[in-house]
Amino acid sequence: MSEIKIAVLVSGGGTNMQAIINEIEKGNINGRIEIVISSNEKAFALERAAKYGIEGIYIGKNNYSDVHKRTEAILEILEKKEIQLIVLAGYMSILESSFIEKYKNRIINIHPALIPSFCGKGYYGQKVHQAVLDYGAKVSGATVHFVDEGTDTGPVILQEAVEVKDDDTVETLAARVLEAEHRLLPKAVKLFCEGKLVVEGRKVRILTNK
Amino acid sequence: MSEIKIAVLVSGGGTNMQAIINEIEKGNINGRIEIVISSNEKAFALERAAKYGIEGIYIGKNNYSDVHKRTEAILEILEKKEIQLIVLAGYMSILESSFIEKYKNRIINIHPALIPSFCGKGYYGQKVHQAVLDYGAKVSGATVHFVDEGTDTGPVILQEAVEVKDDDTVETLAARVLEAEHRLLPKAVKLFCEGKLVVEGRKVRILTNK
Repeated sequence: MSEIKIAVLVSGGGTNMQAIINEIEKGNINGRIEIVISSNEKAFALERAAKYGIEGIYIGKNNYSDVHKRTEAILEILEKKEIQLIVLAGYMSILESSFIEKYKNRIINIHPALIPSFCGKGYYGQKVHQAVLDYGAKVSGATVHFVDEGTDTGPVILQEAVEVKDDDTVETLAARVLEAEHRLLPKAVKLFCEGKLVVEGRKVRILTNK
Repeated sequence: MSEIKIAVLVSGGGTNMQAIINEIEKGNINGRIEIVISSNEKAFALERAAKYGIEGIYIGKNNYSDVHKRTEAILEILEKKEIQLIVLAGYMSILESSFIEKYKNRIINIHPALIPSFCGKGYYGQKVHQAVLDYGAKVSGATVHFVDEGTDTGPVILQEAVEVKDDDTVETLAARVLEAEHRLLPKAVKLFCEGKLVVEGRKVRILTNK
């Protein structure tokens, strides 16, 4: 089975991207990151990519002010690079529905909570953890899912529960959930690259004997 | 600290009640079940209670057709027995808001999912697990919470995550969650009876050094 060609879309530090790179470097993932696309010109993720000789590019409001133009620019690169899997690793920009439709069940996102709790519009970044703490939940977690037209509504690939402690702050909870994200996202990418994720309606079945 | 007087409200088999009895019998809970009230005349929970010499009573539609009369009948018993903690162990009947207000932060319920996922009106019994499977969630769990005026909206005391397996049916998932319920409910009752649950707004803090 040939290596899967991966694009990683980022906006920030890129620690989730780093977690994928680490597993690729170890030879644990049958895939290769062909391109890193950042919506933020100064994202540290672009520096990380460069360190590994991975091509990085900025496509954002400063060079493409129009959202359709941005989408077209991203699509053009993805097609040129023959990308088979798109990983959103903290990508904070809008993906147009035409884009999502074109790459249906080939876009993976990570959310820092147990979907369907604490997700949807307005729940991003630290707001997710603040909501968990405000609710008084005792368990949170991380979810890797395929992206569909909704916000955090696509089929769930993997989830891992994380304990919420009574003395947690947004920062301590975010840090504990991030550890789970760093386990979960490379694992999902690995399964995808081995052809082991089967989407059946809303459900993602994981093949074990392949 | 004197023993806390407990009432358990049931409607069915009473395995969650049994889990509490087991811990009381072992001397692990500083409490005593003074009365079991069933909304179902034929609930096996009443037989279980009798086996341990615990008084059981049926208060339901057959002897009190009016909901207010039922509430009054239950309140009368609770007051006579000087009940300090009410445990809903699969109680499928309505508790009027006057009742809930009177015993604020003294009524404990168990829900077979990780609130705020898969809860609220219509989510009870096997419907909860069916919804989890239909959604394709990979993690579910159990929640013990104080009861407020909403449906499954009260402050969360304890939660435990439970894995959802690809080949789960409602029955196999329900069985796995029930094991968690049997751990969680007696633990919450124990903490309550030791005065270790502090409700602060929506949050339940668990005292550790008392």
